[in-house]
This record gives sequence, C-alpha cells and structure tokens, in this order.
Amino acid sequence: MLKGIHPLLGPELLHAIRTMGHGDEIVIADANFPSSTMGPKVVRADGVGAPGILEAILAHMPLDTFVDESAWRMEVVGDATAVPDICVTFQGLVKKLAGDFTVVPIERFAFYERARRAAYIVATTEFQLYGNIILKKGVVRPEELFRVDSD
Amino acid sequence: MLKGIHPLLGPELLHAIRTMGHGDEIVIADANFPSSTMGPKVVRADGVGAPGILEAILAHMPLDTFVDESAWRMEVVGDATAVPDICVTFQGLVKKLAGDFTVVPIERFAFYERARRAAYIVATTEFQLYGNIILKKGVVRPEELFRVDSD
Amino acid sequence: MLKGIHPLLGPELLHAIRTMGHGDEIVIADANFPSSTMGPKVVRADGVGAPGILEAILAHMPLDTFVDESAWRMEVVGDATAVPDICVTFQGLVKKLAGDFTVVPIERFAFYERARRAAYIVATTEFQLYGNIILKKGVVRPEELFRVDSD
Amino acid sequence: MLKGIHPLLGPELLHAIRTMGHGDEIVIADANFPSSTMGPKVVRADGVGAPGILEAILAHMPLDTFVDESAWRMEVVGDATAVPDICVTFQGLVKKLAGDFTVVPIERFAFYERARRAAYIVATTEFQLYGNIILKKGVVRPEELFRVDSD
Amino acid sequence: MLKGIHPLLGPELLHAIRTMGHGDEIVIADANFPSSTMGPKVVRADGVGAPGILEAILAHMPLDTFVDESAWRMEVVGDATAVPDICVTFQGLVKKLAGDFTVVPIERFAFYERARRAAYIVATTEFQLYGNIILKKGVVRPEELFRVDSD
Amino acid sequence: MLKGIHPLLGPELLHAIRTMGHGDEIVIADANFPSSTMGPKVVRADGVGAPGILEAILAHMPLDTFVDESAWRMEVVGDATAVPDICVTFQGLVKKLAGDFTVVPIERFAFYERARRAAYIVATTEFQLYGNIILKKGVVRPEELFRVDSD
Amino acid sequence: MLKGIHPLLGPELLHAIRTMGHGDEIVIADANFPSSTMGPKVVRADGVGAPGILEAILAHMPLDTFVDESAWRMEVVGDATAVPDICVTFQGLVKKLAGDFTVVPIERFAFYERARRAAYIVATTEFQLYGNIILKKGVVRPEELFRVDSD
Amino acid sequence: MLKGIHPLLGPELLHAIRTMGHGDEIVIADANFPSSTMGPKVVRADGVGAPGILEAILAHMPLDTFVDESAWRMEVVGDATAVPDICVTFQGLVKKLAGDFTVVPIERFAFYERARRAAYIVATTEFQLYGNIILKKGVVRPEELFRVDSD
Amino acid sequence: MLKGIHPLLGPELLHAIRTMGHGDEIVIADANFPSSTMGPKVVRADGVGAPGILEAILAHMPLDTFVDESAWRMEVVGDATAVPDICVTFQGLVKKLAGDFTVVPIERFAFYERARRAAYIVATTEFQLYGNIILKKGVVRPEELFRVDSD
Amino acid sequence: MLKGIHPLLGPELLHAIRTMGHGDEIVIADANFPSSTMGPKVVRADGVGAPGILEAILAHMPLDTFVDESAWRMEVVGDATAVPDICVTFQGLVKKLAGDFTVVPIERFAFYERARRAAYIVATTEFQLYGNIILKKGVVRPEELFRVDSD
Repeated sequence: MLKGIHPLLGPELLHAIRTMGHGDEIVIADANFPSSTMGPKVVRADGVGAPGILEAILAHMPLDTFVDESAWRMEVVGDATAVPDICVTFQGLVKKLAGDFTVVPIERFAFYERARRAAYIVATTEFQLYGNIILKKGVVRPEELFRVDSD
Repeated sequence: MLKGIHPLLGPELLHAIRTMGHGDEIVIADANFPSSTMGPKVVRADGVGAPGILEAILAHMPLDTFVDESAWRMEVVGDATAVPDICVTFQGLVKKLAGDFTVVPIERFAFYERARRAAYIVATTEFQLYGNIILKKGVVRPEELFRVDSD
Repeated sequence: MLKGIHPLLGPELLHAIRTMGHGDEIVIADANFPSSTMGPKVVRADGVGAPGILEAILAHMPLDTFVDESAWRMEVVGDATAVPDICVTFQGLVKKLAGDFTVVPIERFAFYERARRAAYIVATTEFQLYGNIILKKGVVRPEELFRVDSD
Repeated sequence: MLKGIHPLLGPELLHAIRTMGHGDEIVIADANFPSSTMGPKVVRADGVGAPGILEAILAHMPLDTFVDESAWRMEVVGDATAVPDICVTFQGLVKKLAGDFTVVPIERFAFYERARRAAYIVATTEFQLYGNIILKKGVVRPEELFRVDSD
Repeated sequence: MLKGIHPLLGPELLHAIRTMGHGDEIVIADANFPSSTMGPKVVRADGVGAPGILEAILAHMPLDTFVDESAWRMEVVGDATAVPDICVTFQGLVKKLAGDFTVVPIERFAFYERARRAAYIVATTEFQLYGNIILKKGVVRPEELFRVDSD
Repeated sequence: MLKGIHPLLGPELLHAIRTMGHGDEIVIADANFPSSTMGPKVVRADGVGAPGILEAILAHMPLDTFVDESAWRMEVVGDATAVPDICVTFQGLVKKLAGDFTVVPIERFAFYERARRAAYIVATTEFQLYGNIILKKGVVRPEELFRVDSD
Repeated sequence: MLKGIHPLLGPELLHAIRTMGHGDEIVIADANFPSSTMGPKVVRADGVGAPGILEAILAHMPLDTFVDESAWRMEVVGDATAVPDICVTFQGLVKKLAGDFTVVPIERFAFYERARRAAYIVATTEFQLYGNIILKKGVVRPEELFRVDSD
Repeated sequence: MLKGIHPLLGPELLHAIRTMGHGDEIVIADANFPSSTMGPKVVRADGVGAPGILEAILAHMPLDTFVDESAWRMEVVGDATAVPDICVTFQGLVKKLAGDFTVVPIERFAFYERARRAAYIVATTEFQLYGNIILKKGVVRPEELFRVDSD
Repeated sequence: MLKGIHPLLGPELLHAIRTMGHGDEIVIADANFPSSTMGPKVVRADGVGAPGILEAILAHMPLDTFVDESAWRMEVVGDATAVPDICVTFQGLVKKLAGDFTVVPIERFAFYERARRAAYIVATTEFQLYGNIILKKGVVRPEELFRVDSD
Repeated sequence: MLKGIHPLLGPELLHAIRTMGHGDEIVIADANFPSSTMGPKVVRADGVGAPGILEAILAHMPLDTFVDESAWRMEVVGDATAVPDICVTFQGLVKKLAGDFTVVPIERFAFYERARRAAYIVATTEFQLYGNIILKKGVVRPEELFRVDSD
C-alpha cells in the first residue's frame, strides 16, 4: 500500500500504466470478455468490478486530447441504441475524472479488433454484461507533474 | 507518466515499493555500492542521484512506527562521527517527508549485512561517497488511503 | 467465469487451491502484509478484501480435521486480547462455511514464521489492519466429491 | 481436491477454462489427435477419456447462445453420415448438461482448421476413433453466478 | 498413442520414468496428497486413479532387488494395522506385475519424508484415502532388454 | 531403462513420439542434415545411426494408412534413380516393422520443405550420405492398444 | 562506476550501445513516448532527462557518415516549423559531440515508424514535450580506437 | 581447452558449428557489423580478430562443393573493385584451409540480406573495415571422419 | 559433423567438455545409473555405449597428472574384486588414449558421492551393468595446443 | 565498437564491470581454469589472452585502496617462490594502470576459494599456465568521474 496512489492499483497494473505512453490503449474487460486470446498482455484483476478499475486508472492516467475519440464501449448486440447501466456508470466516471470525453459505442467485433491492438487488457470480474471499456492514454504536460512541494 | 505519482518512480520501482509490506526494507545505493552481489533484487536507477530517489519513495511510502529505528546510513570508514553532506540531505528529506525519524549511522559491514536482508536495492548513480540509505516500510492506515473524492 | 465456482476465484487462485493437499496452508494477507518477502508463491488479489477471498476459498476448500488447529490470525501488537472487527468477520465466515473451527490468535512474528512455510500467500488489498488469516487444508472424502447427478 | 468442483478438472484445466471468455473455443482431443502441432496451448489429460473431460467442462462452462453452432465433432473420413458411438455419447452429455445444442459434424481438415484457432486443446487418452469435440464458451449472466447463500 | 507401451503413460510420465535409474523412487499420490509442496517434480495425472498409474508404471519399470524394501504405502493414521482396500489393490498389482515384493506400511510423516527425496511425484485424482504408494526402481539387465526380433 | 520399450528411445524421443498424433511427421536426419535451421524442434541423437532410430521408432509408432505415401527419403542429387545402401536398409526396416509401405524418393529441396513442416527432427550421427527419412504417424486403433493381460 | 566512461550509462545501456553496429538506430524517448508498444527492446532510464542520455551516448558512439541523415526529431503536431527548446538543446549537443549533423524533423507517425525499426529505445523521464531523438550509429575506424598508451 | 581442437573455438562456437549442416551459413562479422539486429543467433567473440575465427572454423568445417559459391565478402562501398587487405587475408586462409574456393564480393545490402538468413553470426572485434565473411558449410564424407586409430 | 573432431561428440557434449577445466570431473553413466537425481547437469547420450563416449572424450580431453587418481569405476556390489568386462574395456581405452592411469574401483555409494560433485554426467544407454566411469580433466600445456600449421 | 572504451570489452564484460561495486572481485581465468564449476557468473572471453583482458579492465576499473591487498595470483604448485612470466606481465600492467599494488600469490586451493566468492569470472583462452588473476574493485571518487568537457 502506498500513500497518494489509488489502492486498487496493484503492482502489475501500476507497472502497466506507467509504461504506457501517448496514444497507447488499455482495455478494462468484464468477466465474460475473451481477454486471454486477444493477444495483448493481460493484467488479472479477479474479484474487482470494472468501475473500480476505471476510477483507479483515471485517477492517475489522462486521456488523449490529440484525437477525436479516446474512450470506447461495446454496443449491445442486436440493440445498437441501448445503453446498459454499467456504461452509464463508465460515462459518469470519465466525465468526473478525465473531463469532457464521450465513451463512444462500437460494434462487438470492431471492439475486439481494437482490443487486439491495445497495450494491455485488465481482466476484471465485472458481472454486468457489456462491462468493457477501452481508454487511450494522453500526455502529461510538464506543469501537470507531481511535485513534492505542491503535495 | 502518471498524474499524482512522483515522476522519478519508473515502472520497476513503482512495482517494487507497491509489493513491499510492513517491515520490509529497501536500500537506496550510491554508484560505488556493490548492489549486484548483495542478493536482493536490484532496481537500476542509473543516472539518478540518491536524494531524488529518496524523495520519490518517501512521497508515497511511510516509515515504520512499530520499531525504534526505520532509516539507516553507512558510517564513514575510520571516522564514525563524520556526517557527509549527502547524509545531511538524507536526514532533511526524511524529516520533511516521513516525520520525526533519525537516520541512524551503522558500521560499513553491518550496513552490508542489513542490505543483504532487504527486499530491494535501488542502484543509483549517486556520485557522493556514503550516499546510501536503508528505509523500513511502515503501515498505511485505512484513514490514510488515497480516495478520489478527497483528491 | 464459470458456473458453480465462486466468482472471486480467478485462474491463478483456482489453480493454487487445486494443487494444495492435506495439511498444506494458505495465507490470506492484508494490504500491509510483507507478502513478497516471505518466500511462498504469491497470488495477487489486488483490489479485493480479505473476507471475500476467505469466503471464496472456504466455499470450495475444507479445513483439516486431523489436527487441533486449522486457522490462525495475527494477535494485535501490544494488546493480545483485542479482537479486531475484521477478525470477528473471519471467525464468522469460518464457522458458517467450514464448521466448528476456532481462528486461533498467534503472536506477530510467530505468524510470520508460519506464513513462511505456507504453500501460497494471497495478497489482498484488505485495508483493515490485522486482516490476515492462515488456513490449513483438509481432506475431501470420496463421498463428498462433486458429482454431476447430484448437482 | 475441492468441494463443488468436478474432480476431473486438474489445476491446469481449471485455470484454462477460467481464463476463457465469450466465444473462445476449447478442443477435447482423442488419443490419436495431433494436438501438439496445432498451435494452441495443450492441456494434457493423459489417461482420461473424452466423455469424462466433456462432462467436467460442461459442469462449469456454458455454451454460446449468441451463435447458431457452439459444438462440433469430426466427420468420419469417407462416411459423412456415420455417427460413431463416442459421438452419440458426446451429444447426450451436451444435451444433459448444456441444453438444446447440436454437436455439428464437420469435415476432418475443417475440424483441424477450427482447432488451430482454439484457445486450448485438451489431449485425452480417449481410445475411440473420432473422439474429438470442440466447444464454444458462452456467457455467465449475473443471475447465474455462484453465491454462497444459495449453495 | 504408441504400440506396446501402456496407454496411461502420457509424454511427461514416460519421460520421467525413462530418466529414472537404479534406486530412484517415484510417488504415486492420491487426490488429497500435498504433492506440490513436497519438493520433487510433479507429474500431473488429473482424472486418473492410482491403480491405473501403478499398473502402467510397473508394466515397464522393474523394482529394486538390491535392497530389502522397494515399495511403501502410508499407514492409516490412528490404526496402524488397518489395510485399506486401495492398498490391497496396490499389493495385488505389485505381486502380479513386479514379483514377490511387499508393499511396506510406514507412518504418515515418515512417508512424507521419503516422498521429499523421491525423483518424481505423480499427482493422481485417486479418490480413496491412503491411495499413495512409493516405488523404488530396479535394474534392467541386458538380457531383459526389448529387442525387435523377440517382439 | 524400461522393459518392453526399445532402448534407443531416450526420454526426449519417447516424449516426442508420444505427443505426435495422426498425420504428424518426424524426420530422422543424418549427420550432415541442416537440422537446426529447419524450424521444428530437434531431438539430438548424437552418436547413433539412422537405422537404429528408425527401428526404435517403428517398433512403437504406426505409419499412416489414410494417405498414399507415409515415408520419404531424399533423392541423390544429380542421379534421381540411385538408391544408396542406407536407403535400401530404410526400406527393409519399414517393410519388416511397419508393413507394406514404399519409402518414396523426393528431390532435395522438396525434402527440405517437407522437413520444415514436420513435428520433430531427430539429429543422428548417421555417417552415410542420404541417410535421411521422414515418417508420417498413423492411428493406433483401440484393439491394438497395449494391455497388461496380453503382455 | 567506471573511469573514462560517461556515468549516465548504466550496465544495460552500455551493453546496448556496445552491441549496436553500423547503421543501427537508437531512440531516446521522452516520458510521454509509447516506448513499450513500439517493438524494440526498451532500456529504462527513469528519472533521467533526454539531453543527459544524448550526451552520454554521443560521448562514446559516432554517427553514421555513409548516409545523408543520421539524427531525427519529431515535428510539432500542427506546427511543422516550430523548434521546441529541447530540440535546440539536442542540435547543440549533436554539433558539439558528433560533428556537423542536422537533427532532421520528421512527422509524428513517420517518427513512430522509424522507431519501430530501431535497435533499442531508451525510455527517459524527459518532461518536455517533443523530447525525442533517433540516432544512427556510425563506424569506428581503426585509428579512432581507444588505446591504453594514448590514454 | 581440448586436444586436437582449435583453441579459438570456445564452447558456444563449437556448439554452433557442430549443429550446422549441409548448406547452412555462418557470418564472421567485424566490430562495426550490426550483428545484433540481423536476426540469427549471435556468438560473441569480443576481443578476437576475424582471421583468427576464420582459421579456427575452417580448421574443422568444410565448405560446400554442391554449389558455385560458398564464401562471400562485402564489397567496398563506392569502390566495387577494391580489395581490402583483410579480404586478401580471408582469401588466403580459405585457399590454404578449405581448398580452391573464391571469396565472392557482394554489395553491402545484399550481404546484409544473406546475413539475415544465416544460421549464426560470430561477432568479432576485428578492427579493419570490411572484415566480414560468410561461409557455407559442406558435407563431411564418411571417409573423412575423425578416427582414433588415424590420430 | 566436423573434421578432426570425434563424431560421437554432439554439440552438447562438445560444449560441456570445452567448459571444463583443470580438476573438473565428468561421469560417463550406464543405462541404469540414476543420472537425473545426482545434481550435475546431464548430457543425454541415448543409444550410445559407454566405451564409445569414453573414446570420444579421451580423444580430446587429457586426464589430471597433478593427483594420484584421475579415473574411477564402480565396484561390483558384494564382490569387490570382480572386474566386469566393460571395466576391462574402460582400462584399455584409458591406457591407449590417456596414458598410464589406473581406473580405480570405488564402492557404489562412494561412487555416487563423487558423481554428485562432478561437472557433468553423460547418460549413455550402455547395457552392461557397472558400465560407469568418472574422469578428472587435466591441463593442456601450451606446447600441446592444436595448431593449423602442424595439422 | 565505441569511442573511448577499451575495444576488448565486449557487451557482457562491460555490463559486468559496470554492475560491480566497491569490494566486489573479478577473476580473469586462464584456459585451464575450472571456471564453470566455481559458482560465479562466467563471462566467456574465448580466444583472448589474460593480459589483454587485464589491460582492458584496469583501463576503466580502479582497485580497492581501503584494504591491504587488491590483486592476487595463483602460486605455482610445488614451487611457491616461482614467478611465471605471465605473472610478471600481470604485475607490470597493474603497476602501469592501477598504481602501486602488489599482485599477491596465494596457494592454489585458497585461490579457488577466493574465486568462488567473486562477482564474475572471465574465462579467457590464455595458454600460459598460472595465467589467473583476481582483482578487487575500488571506489571512483566524484572528482574522478568522466566529464564531457574534460574529454
């Protein structure tokens, strides 16, 4: 346990998001997502829900402002306009912690394709269906850096 | 790079201090310290000075309050009362960031013995002789945890 | 995700408790426990509390009836008679899921010694101090085995 | 050995099916199947028959209801209409444990192609020829999750 | 699958007994045996019973005639004279396949000590309690070697 | 050393042919064959001739009867009709141990192509030029299995 | 620490530039660069700025004189003519230590493409945006070699 | 050190050339050659010159007589007719130790392409520019084999 | 295959004896020797007899002249004066190839102790009982080195 | 190849001496030294003599001035007062490059004991007997550091 760092970030996940750079993407996957066969390195987060991991990551990782879209969720199969409760939660956390970004819905297999090019997949035990989100990391500008004096 | 986390902590060092628990010790070693033959896992911090790493670690890791001593430096060989400038800096940073702890001087080979039982050794490129310090991790109490709302 | 198996058991933890045999012990460690330097293989359960993992393990793993004690917790340092809330929760879960076993308090460093001989340590993010428990696995008798017909 | 979990699932196989997600496929291969040269990770189940492994997996893993076909067997070479006894057994177990799914016959080399894209291959010692089956994992819905209270 | 070789011997187990030499010992362990924490390399035989593995090993591996004892079983805890059914089966198979050797009972913790010095442990899913046996490999004399002409 | 198993099969080679399935191919390569750069896993058989390895493999491995050709040798470069003595020996062993199969000659670079797709290459120290043969594994039918009673 | 070798070169980085040959390229990446997902081996230089690493590498590694361009920086996105301060520093160090080479600006995604084909990426903690540079190694001629006598 | 084997062949290089077969190629690379990024396995020969390694390899490895060319050197960039002294030395050693083979010059990037398909690259510290040579291994005929009696 | 090097020495065994130095010992073990559980690294020589390996090693490796004994065989159990035929062969080869050394018999368990401290064990398929020998490597003096001119 | 760094230092050896600290020792071993069985990590320097490696290491590594002895050679067996030529060379290089240190002779087995506790062993192909030396690394003081301006 560390001071000033979100406690849901274990050593593997901290290591993962610290190695990511501008434009790299990370998938927060629900308990039914085929994380292991996608290709990217998987960080297990068994027993944790997707919103908790989303909050923990956004507490320390900015989203990308160089592009039009920096967060995506999976469309409901057969009902492209549905917005599951878990996705409403995702959008709320993104707005609160990252700023004015839309969590863009994309079709299931397009979501898989995007996931295959991600830097990491966090495999949660989120029970709710469609509890998946992809985030694109932004830049930390020099003036935004942590400093001991301003602590 | 991450928000709210000291930028000198790279992915390996973040991982290391996140895995440490109550009572585990970490050595911040200068450029002449025999880090590789001590036994504990070495985290390389080539090109960085010891005070920078000390500041970065203490920004997030508490010292142990269950015991009488939680920080140690190496005594000057042949002059047990000397306090090198770098060690004055160490004591200042400990006081500022960790609280009222004394950085206790111990004899060179006793320092090596302590280092051999540490969890990790951070191998810096600190040029100053005697630029070594050992820290013992304390407990993070529930009320001290990072929380998004209090951010 | 699987049917009929506690969802908090991820693939590593399932693998771990499936390899354990009669008399092997497993530590469920809180967020301040020095899990990584104890020696046994560590299963990370970052972001999960100790009672959740305890419930998940006891849902599938019996305790040892061949010996007098099969579950232990760490005594409060400096107050051997205190029983922290988290330990009351532990005792309740053990009684409910494993049967009439006492969670025996043992002194901090004796607890560490026992942990060093365990088969596995599960490193949770339990925030409460003293949120550690050790379990000794018992025998599954032939008549207790899972059978499809009796499902 | 664990309570409430099919005893034919060893630690490797439990780990494997716990990592699988929606749409991932697993091959249960007979003793003559070229498991090692297909590409996917092989879980050895030497000495066990295919129906035993099929029963054990279906006891805990649902089949996919999002697609038309979720189970396949290999057609008899030179006699596409034959249904070997072992395949009758497969169909019976699928119906009993997974629901109203057809085990669809596919031509030998098409079966190999499908196997090459699977998540895992379980290499049994099933003696009967054509004792191979591929299963596609489905979704576990929140209301289907294991819960201690309903145990 | 191979001709003339017992089908219960998978590639790992064949490899194991082929590397063993005169005086090396192998443990066939039941489903409750703490195989993983004993130290020797474990060959998983999940889903297979102990008599099957015993038959398969003795079909190809001679016992040691240079010493007084070459096979051991675990004494029933608290009833040193009991002979469980599974152990009667063990003795029968040894007599039929290896010759006039007694399967010697030894006390539980002495059995563990012996297991810790074995070359391999085969972890079966034998359900019966006390379904454990240790075998000491003997010598294959030149005149006993497999020859194609005498096939 | 084991009873009933050809003594030239060491642990690696036994493991290799036990993992092979229907249709998998194995190359027995002479001392000049570029085994290491072909791609398949190499089993070293330094100091052993090709006919010995061929005899040992065919003693336990059937050839494929589902296809027209199941054994191949390399054509003499510049003399497609030549049949080196070593190849006569190969054909004799195949006939004696595997049945009525022709060892089909193929051109040097076509032989290399086939070797690149094999499951394994056994690198012998066969001195004779053109001492290479590829075998395609067949099926072991249930009635052909090794059984203790028929031993 | 070593005599006569730039102290910012730790063991990994020394090893890296010593293995590089004529025409190989190395990326010095800033703290926001997506170093880990580019492909080449990453040498971590957490806590160090890009000019320090540039100085250390150029102190010992010549640039390539066989081609027109041997050093590149990333163009500012949306302002191709801008020259950030950090890039002015880069050009100054190259001139001082390597000779009359221009640090050529290239578009962001072309820079990424070039980085993907590099031999190594050094991941610094350079805070300034656009603090990235790629260097192409040249030849050390016999007469330029270090010699003890000329030391 | 061994009798009858060239002393410049260390254990890695001996192992390498012993695994090579007919038609495999090996690169002896000078100190400026980009050995590590070519792809083939690199055998380090730091501190040794290219002629020494060439002599050592040719002392034990025949060149290929089945093809028109079996040895190549890199053309001088910008002067295709130049023959550097080191290449004269190469040709002399080839003639003396391997027979009547020409060391064929090929253009720099064609040489790189050839090197990428080699079995091994030996990375020497040859100071002279253009101190690179590629050799194609030939066949050792039975009558050329080492025999103790002829020793 | 290489010129001037004994063909029974495969790449692993060549590598092994090249790494050995003055005073290091190597065991040539028969097919019943418990090679894998002794501790030293095992070089497999399946299918090869012990005299062949002995000849191959002694063709290139001198025995130690600094000590009284440099070769040992295992005494026949229960008959310390017996000299098996295979051991007569060993003594003959040692005399012919290494010089005037006695192959000293030592008791079975003392032989095992010596084997546990060896540098390597070569696991042959020598069928004859007591077909084991240990060799102690000597020094190659400068004047004994292989030289191309004296080839 | 690098500028300003001794060319005999390959990437492994550079890495090794850069990780060493105050008091760590390194063995430069001749071609007959039993380097591989001593325990420390071995850096191969096949084909290079011991004086070359000694010069290269001393060009960049200071000896220890905190102790009475910082360099050792092996005494001639049976003639403790002899000083082989190679050892005279060692003493000369030490004096020229490191300063006024004596290369202290120690008895053969005491030398082995010291070697077993070293950080690294460099295995050269030094032909001369007794061509072994052990060096103890000293401290590089801040004022002795390499600086670009003083280059």
